[in-house]
Amino acid sequence: MSHIELRCPKCGITRPADMSAEACRDCGSPMDVGYLATRDTKGDTAPSPVHETSARVTLGEGNTPCVILNTIGGRLPLGRLRAKLEFLNPTGSFKDRGTATMLSVAGERGVTELVEDSSGNAGASVSAYAARAGIKAHIFVPADAPEAKLRQIRAYGTEVHPIAGPREAVTAAAIAYAQQNALVYASHMLSPYFAEGTKTFAYEVVEQLEDDLPGHVVFPVGNGSLLIGAFNGFNELLASGRIEKIPRLHCVQSRNVMPLVAAFNGQKWGPEDAAKTVAGGISIAAPSRQWQILEILRLTGGSAVAVEESSILKFQRDLAEDEGIFAEPTSAAAFAGLEILVDQDIIQQGDDVLVPATGFGLKDEPPPSS
Amino acid sequence: MSHIELRCPKCGITRPADMSAEACRDCGSPMDVGYLATRDTKGDTAPSPVHETSARVTLGEGNTPCVILNTIGGRLPLGRLRAKLEFLNPTGSFKDRGTATMLSVAGERGVTELVEDSSGNAGASVSAYAARAGIKAHIFVPADAPEAKLRQIRAYGTEVHPIAGPREAVTAAAIAYAQQNALVYASHMLSPYFAEGTKTFAYEVVEQLEDDLPGHVVFPVGNGSLLIGAFNGFNELLASGRIEKIPRLHCVQSRNVMPLVAAFNGQKWGPEDAAKTVAGGISIAAPSRQWQILEILRLTGGSAVAVEESSILKFQRDLAEDEGIFAEPTSAAAFAGLEILVDQDIIQQGDDVLVPATGFGLKDEPPPSS
Repeated sequence: MSHIELRCPKCGITRPADMSAEACRDCGSPMDVGYLATRDTKGDTAPSPVHETSARVTLGEGNTPCVILNTIGGRLPLGRLRAKLEFLNPTGSFKDRGTATMLSVAGERGVTELVEDSSGNAGASVSAYAARAGIKAHIFVPADAPEAKLRQIRAYGTEVHPIAGPREAVTAAAIAYAQQNALVYASHMLSPYFAEGTKTFAYEVVEQLEDDLPGHVVFPVGNGSLLIGAFNGFNELLASGRIEKIPRLHCVQSRNVMPLVAAFNGQKWGPEDAAKTVAGGISIAAPSRQWQILEILRLTGGSAVAVEESSILKFQRDLAEDEGIFAEPTSAAAFAGLEILVDQDIIQQGDDVLVPATGFGLKDEPPPSS
Repeated sequence: MSHIELRCPKCGITRPADMSAEACRDCGSPMDVGYLATRDTKGDTAPSPVHETSARVTLGEGNTPCVILNTIGGRLPLGRLRAKLEFLNPTGSFKDRGTATMLSVAGERGVTELVEDSSGNAGASVSAYAARAGIKAHIFVPADAPEAKLRQIRAYGTEVHPIAGPREAVTAAAIAYAQQNALVYASHMLSPYFAEGTKTFAYEVVEQLEDDLPGHVVFPVGNGSLLIGAFNGFNELLASGRIEKIPRLHCVQSRNVMPLVAAFNGQKWGPEDAAKTVAGGISIAAPSRQWQILEILRLTGGSAVAVEESSILKFQRDLAEDEGIFAEPTSAAAFAGLEILVDQDIIQQGDDVLVPATGFGLKDEPPPSS
């Protein structure tokens, strides 16, 4: 018997664990992993939906360093500003945490071929772990996706399917292809296992910073899988008595694609208002877990702010030139948001803050010259 | 008083520790760090030339994962074939180990501006750590260096000096510029501190693999700093009784640039025989520490083999498509060499082998399509 089931985080409905990315049949929310039996962890390691540890598909993801940013932190000014270098995961982004879990479950369920849609970090991550697991991956991408992004995806031997039209057309084509060919749709946006895998972020933060836990964690948010995973992890650590308080979790988006910021602040915004952003990793006009993200901001006392394109690029430069950290624009957006959160006194001078640097600067297009 | 001095690994002559990259005035060998006083380590951590731990310039380098390569390892066939994912260092290559130490020493000696020559991983690494330390970096590069390589170097705000002519002209220009402007020449090829920093590789391998230490470690070798550092580290661990035996350390080069392989095997080869190789990181026609490298191969029972360009590219593809590891061609060269070492029965079927995957595939030019 399985030690897990799938559980809707919104209405609580459950169903047996499977590889389907199908949403809750009642309320439409993506499902989460629920545990039927508590395992013998002492609350120090995240529970895992993988049955056999030996069957884990791993490239050594996680255990990324936390480094102090004295220059940027001193300028704001904050107490200790730390970056967790999530781009030092095996494919260069935090996605590997989620993918490792999703592909481990797929592997032990005998999946041999799967479908995903992403022209960015998730596409590269799923491709790499699929290659490692001996699973054939079909990655659906926008026909106009930049060659630099596709290069890494193709390197892992993935079959890339370019689709014309808007981003939603790519998702629709991926789902249709999976259905027609009876393949698993291993969506980083919808899979309960992907979201579950990102929980290790919180466990590591607590292990690394221990008694020095930051008051705030500031995330760049597209689909929100890292923010959701971090919250679920912190929540488990709170329940087990390992920590006394969950940090305030904040959401940063580009002003050009800001569904969550608008919803959080009661502003009108629709996918038709979306414009191109340098922060490609958070260019998601309709996040499938929007409800869950807003609930987490509310529960932890977090906030949601939108940032200018120019500020994203400025912080990308500052991170590299002042701190030696070459991150994607998407990652830099979180620091641009942090500046606003300090300006608005939501984060106060002297507070300790942690920001995940989610993706490697090497992965993106060359930034416009300064 | 300093706890270190500089010591010639060839003739034993010493001089007080300084930031000069000058070779031994007697025999011309680059100098190493020598320790005057033993510190209070229990042999578990590498001794460091840095006086104040709090002054360390760090981006969280090291602690890279070791992963098992079942597919490639099974094909050769070996016992356990492991890759240590050195490309998951902060700038995407193992160089960060050496750079962190070199820049920490520079920082505590009050260096504010330095010079280095490299169009590749070392240039990016020195740029990043210099940025972090608030030190201005001048990186001298060949005028025809590929834009993709320069992009990362420039991102850290480095001043890039393009120099026309052969690779040696670039080094000469860097040295001349350093002399004219009374700046430190922080050469990853010559600095004793850089070589010293790479020792942590061996300490980590022993900590991670413990009783399961591989019989062989196979390195792609250009200047040989990782091989030298690893040997020095293993040697300290042997002296302290932490390990009983040093693994056999092997050297792999491209057939197009093979000074060490030729010297090891008594073949005639000169810089005039060098041709272009896809393995840019080991395209060093006259390694400044050649004597030291050959001595290490001899002492550990290692060997030196040269590989074809086509084999390098084949293993780059195999690593990505079969194991999910996207490494530079330079890193793939070591696996191509491993195949030869097995063919020649130098490494025997069933042996345990470790190979460092030294640089991220994202850092290089797109490989020719297969």
